[in-house]
Amino acid sequence: MSNVLEIIPLGGIGEFGMNCTLLRSGDEMLVLDAGMGFPEESVYGVDVCIPDFEILEQYRDYITAIVLTHGHEDHLGALPYILKKFNVPVYASHFTLGLAESKLDEHGILGDVLLHRVEPRDVVTIGSFTVEFIRASHSLIDCFHLAIKTPLGTIIHTGDYKVDETPVIGEPIDLRSLRRYGQEGVLALLSDSTNATVPGRTPSERAVIPAFEEIFTEAKGRIIVAAFSSSIHRIQIVLDCAQKFDRKVCVLGRSMQKNVDIAERLGYLDVPDGLLIGINDTKHYSDHEIVFLVTGSQAEPRAALYQLATQMYKGLTIEENDTVVLSARIIPGNERAISKLIGFIYKRGANIIEEKRRLIHVSGHASQDDIRIMTEAVRPKFVVPIHGEYRMLFRHKEFVKNHLGFPEERIILIENGDVLEIDGERAMVVDKRDVKRTFIDESGFEEIDNETVRERKKMAYDGMITLVMTINGQTGELQAPPKIISHGVRGFETNGFAKTASASKNLTKDAERIVAAALAGASRQTLEDETLLKEHVRLELKRFIQKETGARPVIVPVIQQV
Amino acid sequence: MSNVLEIIPLGGIGEFGMNCTLLRSGDEMLVLDAGMGFPEESVYGVDVCIPDFEILEQYRDYITAIVLTHGHEDHLGALPYILKKFNVPVYASHFTLGLAESKLDEHGILGDVLLHRVEPRDVVTIGSFTVEFIRASHSLIDCFHLAIKTPLGTIIHTGDYKVDETPVIGEPIDLRSLRRYGQEGVLALLSDSTNATVPGRTPSERAVIPAFEEIFTEAKGRIIVAAFSSSIHRIQIVLDCAQKFDRKVCVLGRSMQKNVDIAERLGYLDVPDGLLIGINDTKHYSDHEIVFLVTGSQAEPRAALYQLATQMYKGLTIEENDTVVLSARIIPGNERAISKLIGFIYKRGANIIEEKRRLIHVSGHASQDDIRIMTEAVRPKFVVPIHGEYRMLFRHKEFVKNHLGFPEERIILIENGDVLEIDGERAMVVDKRDVKRTFIDESGFEEIDNETVRERKKMAYDGMITLVMTINGQTGELQAPPKIISHGVRGFETNGFAKTASASKNLTKDAERIVAAALAGASRQTLEDETLLKEHVRLELKRFIQKETGARPVIVPVIQQV
Repeated sequence: MSNVLEIIPLGGIGEFGMNCTLLRSGDEMLVLDAGMGFPEESVYGVDVCIPDFEILEQYRDYITAIVLTHGHEDHLGALPYILKKFNVPVYASHFTLGLAESKLDEHGILGDVLLHRVEPRDVVTIGSFTVEFIRASHSLIDCFHLAIKTPLGTIIHTGDYKVDETPVIGEPIDLRSLRRYGQEGVLALLSDSTNATVPGRTPSERAVIPAFEEIFTEAKGRIIVAAFSSSIHRIQIVLDCAQKFDRKVCVLGRSMQKNVDIAERLGYLDVPDGLLIGINDTKHYSDHEIVFLVTGSQAEPRAALYQLATQMYKGLTIEENDTVVLSARIIPGNERAISKLIGFIYKRGANIIEEKRRLIHVSGHASQDDIRIMTEAVRPKFVVPIHGEYRMLFRHKEFVKNHLGFPEERIILIENGDVLEIDGERAMVVDKRDVKRTFIDESGFEEIDNETVRERKKMAYDGMITLVMTINGQTGELQAPPKIISHGVRGFETNGFAKTASASKNLTKDAERIVAAALAGASRQTLEDETLLKEHVRLELKRFIQKETGARPVIVPVIQQV
Repeated sequence: MSNVLEIIPLGGIGEFGMNCTLLRSGDEMLVLDAGMGFPEESVYGVDVCIPDFEILEQYRDYITAIVLTHGHEDHLGALPYILKKFNVPVYASHFTLGLAESKLDEHGILGDVLLHRVEPRDVVTIGSFTVEFIRASHSLIDCFHLAIKTPLGTIIHTGDYKVDETPVIGEPIDLRSLRRYGQEGVLALLSDSTNATVPGRTPSERAVIPAFEEIFTEAKGRIIVAAFSSSIHRIQIVLDCAQKFDRKVCVLGRSMQKNVDIAERLGYLDVPDGLLIGINDTKHYSDHEIVFLVTGSQAEPRAALYQLATQMYKGLTIEENDTVVLSARIIPGNERAISKLIGFIYKRGANIIEEKRRLIHVSGHASQDDIRIMTEAVRPKFVVPIHGEYRMLFRHKEFVKNHLGFPEERIILIENGDVLEIDGERAMVVDKRDVKRTFIDESGFEEIDNETVRERKKMAYDGMITLVMTINGQTGELQAPPKIISHGVRGFETNGFAKTASASKNLTKDAERIVAAALAGASRQTLEDETLLKEHVRLELKRFIQKETGARPVIVPVIQQV
């Protein structure tokens, strides 16, 4: 029926996170990953963002399944939100679904959804698509590349990956299966670009073991390891070191505890009996017999490490002789906060081991020579760089072109919302959808609409003035002097919720006089039309404030009719 | 009279920027540098911050002078603000005062202040202090170390520096003078910590010349160099390359034009006749005959580079075959914005040369081996690390202790507001002042008080609700239904300034009913007391909103008496 294939990224292109790609063939569509992103709008009460699933409404009857490559938040986090709108089956690995279940349970929809557990090398037919799940190696466990046979040819979606031949947990990357597809012929390779700027190979997850063993050998007191709670390989290394060096492990932080539980329950983590202890039991051990495995490597104020460093954690604090290991990369945007956190830890007198000084963290993403191995294994007709800011996508293209001799016209750079149409021979962007982000307030799992965030931004920048005018509904006469309530406006009173008014000059009374004068001078026509009247006084007040202070607060006239 | 010396940092310790240190001996006080900082509060309409000069009120009669080490904003930027409060003489180099004059002129106080121009090796007596200005090398020109003789001994303040024996402009660092003081005996060395985490030596300003010559050799089209407008050495290198490779230079961006003007006028920049051209003249030249020297290396949206990349610059845009050189470091906090900007430039089809790929930028700050050279030259009794986050100060201490064998008890870590008392023998923190930051809105050169910023933060996070109740002044009776005006509140109408109301559920009417019910159920006593009444309805409304949405907006009840 259909003689083209459509690839439409809803997120993850030109940005980090929020990975989600649609793959359509005729009247069937797969959703590949459903990730969340971490927007800069956090000061406006926004915790995360998810793709704009509105665009899916027009394909409501086409969507046959959601297929997840792995369980990182930027691939999985939007799952509850998309399932609430489109309740279709989900295909993913055991561990990915372990994480997904806990999430769906929090959202109260676990009982209502259909989850299919798949193993590496499983081949599943979903409508006219046939999907093989190929073992990928990454910083997380139980991750997949997807080989999707379509009527027009095979698409390989790498998910996140690096070429790790010696992972800590589980089998290495299944290059053999990838090569098999390469021999059979692959139409397009959608390929992770996160580390496309990095030369060479990404080190194996095992590469950090020597540094960890050194640290465990040297540390005289307690060891505190902060890592991403999803770094299951890393967690296993910490457990192994603890066992080897006769230390007990106390896990702190909700997400770390949850992930250790899930990984142990599903048989991925090897936890010797009696190794894990609760925080209350730590007091029965000497300092050199304890490791804390904690959340908060990104200096999140509510996570364990920050709380420990600032003496906010109940019953526990970082002390002299502690060794704090920051076993994670710095996510761009968190530099200042992490630098400050390190300062707090130094002030507590502890020793800090950072990534820059010792090999205690490795990336989970393909560097240039990993990209070379992947591309040469798959030998696709088209390369489509995904996962990354435009800068990384471009460098991915540059590398494949200059170093692998891949023809430039067959490397396709796309953007979120682009409709990339592929027939057997050609690939081109034929349409561009307007895809936005949806903001989420995680406290209530609630969407925050864009207009609400826009209002918050405006108020935040120059403050807000509410102008109350009480008017006789019959006569149009002012019943009381106009009243100004200002918030966060330079030079105006701090009303209402502020305890003290500390403005150096106080323009409130002057502004009220300006409004009264504007009302007195208004024409009969203006006075009778509420909209005209509001606009009239708003403009007068705006001019006055700009002249006096240079500021442009939001001004909201309110007319109360009595 | 006095047998102790006091050192009180008002800024620059535990943070980057806002450098300012007080030095007091008896009833005389010097202010060393008066810098501004760049706070994270920019979303709240705050452009910069300056030290809290309130603390100086108690020393009003003591302050004898302000001494500036150099002209970077984080050492100079607060000068107009401190001079408006304390009009004392300023001592600084020709170039530093060139920058200062332009600033003071903008603030309208240039005619009212006393500026003393000093040369390297000048020795100036200021009360009981004798200050020698020693040539420092840095990324800026005409910078000083300060050697301050006090009744209790000599203090050396490094300012910002690196050990550069081959600067592009001017003489190298004057280590000989520093060693002379070292031989005579130095009480304390206040020393730049910015790069104390970096091993080895910081390269000379000249180190980037080979890469620039390569770039000029290779570039087929226009070259666009983005650099800090204060990097005068770098600017000279670009001018020299342009001259050598037969290109004209067009300077874009207000601060870049200003600094080039000042540096040329004062004879620091060597600009061959006819080399500089205006933007309108560029059309008379071929692409390979032009270099643009532009502001905006930090992706500031209003600076030239961002505007050129996003097609917002009038009459000029980045195009295919352009070579864009990002000749600056990434200031922490700007990573995401810069990465996005690079994406925009790639999209324009231009070639980008970043610091990571070629040596086109060097730091102006002392690495560990520079710190070694400085410390060994000055041989102080006490080392006091300054300029940097606590993390850098600590690493500075660690380096001097572990690698130079400096006794730990004579390395003094201080914080902003600490009063460090030094007699001839001992140095200790004897007091701790509560120093804050003062926020500045640069559009009006106006202070923004902390309460105003706090209000903006609260509104930004969960929005704001204004509740208007019109009451008969005589009877206390409600004259109209209560009215709710909400801004940026999840689930509520977007009033007033928002064009569209797009909330998924609309709680405004429900909330108004809750308030009406609360008023109907209020006791006579509550109704008669405006404060009680406001608090009563505020609490009812708060409970309702939290139950319905989980949000905690600011709620401001307004009572209008008629």
